[in-house]
Amino acid sequence: MTTQQPYLLTPGPITTTLSVKQAMLQDWGSWDGDFRAMTAELCRQLVALIEGDGSHVCVPMQGSGTFAVEATLATLVPRDGKLLILMNGAYGQRMGKIMEYLGREYVALDKGDFAPPRGEEVEAMLMADPAITHVAVVHCETSSGILNPVEEIAEVVARQERRLIIDSMSAFGAVEISARRVQFDALISSANKCFEGVPGFGFSLIRQAALEASIGNAHSLSMDLLDQWQYLMKTGQWRYTPPTHVVAAFLQALKEHAEEGGVAGRHARYQRNQQRLVSGMRQLGFETLLSDEWLSPIIITFFSPGHDNFAFQAFYDRMKARGFIIYPGKLTEAESFRLGCIGQLFDAQVDAVLAAVAEVLSEMEIPDGTPAHQIHAAATA
Amino acid sequence: MTTQQPYLLTPGPITTTLSVKQAMLQDWGSWDGDFRAMTAELCRQLVALIEGDGSHVCVPMQGSGTFAVEATLATLVPRDGKLLILMNGAYGQRMGKIMEYLGREYVALDKGDFAPPRGEEVEAMLMADPAITHVAVVHCETSSGILNPVEEIAEVVARQERRLIIDSMSAFGAVEISARRVQFDALISSANKCFEGVPGFGFSLIRQAALEASIGNAHSLSMDLLDQWQYLMKTGQWRYTPPTHVVAAFLQALKEHAEEGGVAGRHARYQRNQQRLVSGMRQLGFETLLSDEWLSPIIITFFSPGHDNFAFQAFYDRMKARGFIIYPGKLTEAESFRLGCIGQLFDAQVDAVLAAVAEVLSEMEIPDGTPAHQIHAAATA
Repeated sequence: MTTQQPYLLTPGPITTTLSVKQAMLQDWGSWDGDFRAMTAELCRQLVALIEGDGSHVCVPMQGSGTFAVEATLATLVPRDGKLLILMNGAYGQRMGKIMEYLGREYVALDKGDFAPPRGEEVEAMLMADPAITHVAVVHCETSSGILNPVEEIAEVVARQERRLIIDSMSAFGAVEISARRVQFDALISSANKCFEGVPGFGFSLIRQAALEASIGNAHSLSMDLLDQWQYLMKTGQWRYTPPTHVVAAFLQALKEHAEEGGVAGRHARYQRNQQRLVSGMRQLGFETLLSDEWLSPIIITFFSPGHDNFAFQAFYDRMKARGFIIYPGKLTEAESFRLGCIGQLFDAQVDAVLAAVAEVLSEMEIPDGTPAHQIHAAATA
Repeated sequence: MTTQQPYLLTPGPITTTLSVKQAMLQDWGSWDGDFRAMTAELCRQLVALIEGDGSHVCVPMQGSGTFAVEATLATLVPRDGKLLILMNGAYGQRMGKIMEYLGREYVALDKGDFAPPRGEEVEAMLMADPAITHVAVVHCETSSGILNPVEEIAEVVARQERRLIIDSMSAFGAVEISARRVQFDALISSANKCFEGVPGFGFSLIRQAALEASIGNAHSLSMDLLDQWQYLMKTGQWRYTPPTHVVAAFLQALKEHAEEGGVAGRHARYQRNQQRLVSGMRQLGFETLLSDEWLSPIIITFFSPGHDNFAFQAFYDRMKARGFIIYPGKLTEAESFRLGCIGQLFDAQVDAVLAAVAEVLSEMEIPDGTPAHQIHAAATA
């Protein structure tokens, strides 16, 4: 790492290794055999990571993660289908917005800012409404940092014989999931989250039979994952120009992911980052939004201190001056901010973050142990 | 340039400078002020290049160029509008496919593989069909390499009071166009063509009044350019994660574009490449598909030699072994291949290409001056 660059304490784009970035120092012809081999390798490795050989295929998708989510919903949920969206934050809500654009029917189980959707209530909704064909859940909802109980939900969706779509944008690569143990039609993720690549494309790991049955569903040429996959099968190429350099970086990132011990190894480091960060922040008087049970190893929401001297922008600027880019909160009901645990962060960086927070609090004249904002807000309400 | 990397003789991705690629050796927080400033600068420069200040705005779009084309058509052509597509190759045809997905009305003036659409015939169609609201034309149709007569077409479209959308994917940056002299509602292009950036996003330069009037047109959340623009105006950020490294590379590419003399300077080099390439290839017995009048400075289609020893794949592999990646042809009626003139190509590379072609022909035992394939085909028909 060049040390001058600030560390990104965010849910992606994140801080990547220099070697990942250096993989972009070459130009590739996107139709050439060398690049076709890179695409094939990328797909092979991603399918293997979910133990999806023989059941699932990988369809890469240019653009941000949202493009991959929209493309997956549009390709898999039939025009006369009905989607149940499990919402507890911005990314669940965004799926609702996508369905509005698509003009397809959906219903939401909206748990507000951060409460987890539970298997029982999902099952009740499915039993009450046989028109629902698909269920969509966000694996790690980075709005709050919660790791939703995907396995519990998959179980009831399978029992009720509906199809599950998992938005695992911020979890896949660091949270174990196997298509052999969890039934899903699609798992969506992107290059620049837990795989520690750079942003530019997403991908959907789709049950082949579901994809093959999706003829005529897509609303968009660019986002038709069936067409994208069929062309890939026929030619080895992406249909339209892929972000070649970003793909090369992702292959290097996959290599480093494997070297770290794959999903288990990456999970262990992120989990360690999270615990060290949470414990250190609690010592400085901060409180987490979520109880330990629901904390993800991806990103943590902390309540802002209730002290009058605290202002997020000043806190952000002072942290940035110390080499750390933090992330604003997204709660509707309390002042908060978020710190990510993913990317090239190790004990040394976590300790430096904690030292920087302590310094900034002191500069802003906010004593340690100031009650958190939600308590302050409640007390003054 | 690292010399081991093959030169890409293609219409993009192309061979970029090392300095453009080195701009990707840093990670950026996409919501951070530093990156917001980069986005603002990118938009400012692109609008300035079409002299669009006060009339046009820049809306960047994640994904390949096709995403930007689909997004522009979907955002600007109303659901009850009607589009006239001027087709003379794959990219015009693709716009037809997009309209099929959108379920919006369109009609085509299809000139086949390479004949240019002319102002007179466009005007006749517009006069005969008052329901047509928009006209779309491909600036440089790389299927054949033709530079379509956009100014002539813009004139009749304006006279007939319809709106023009220009797909200038492969031309903008090297072919002069000014919003003050040519009336258009949108000009679409991408990072990895004549600006010599790397692939990962496109952009649309849209007449602000047309964009503001486009409420409710878009079929897709991800591709709603009005929503993308409004969010950009409000926050300075892209709505969804941008390809941060690709954007950084593009800013460096814009700097190098300006240093080369902007559009005029880039055009002069590409034009010189084209003339040197065409003249050298003609000396080797090759014939161009198009007469000189219609040749673009972007990419040239050559007929394959009619000799029995010629096979495209063998020719491709032998050229690649010599460090050049060429481009297959796309004509329906004759064997052909294409050579690009864009990217980091100068006299030395063009001369090396010509030397390599001569060597390969000799290895394949195809004598200089073998009649081109179209003549051979005609003779044996």
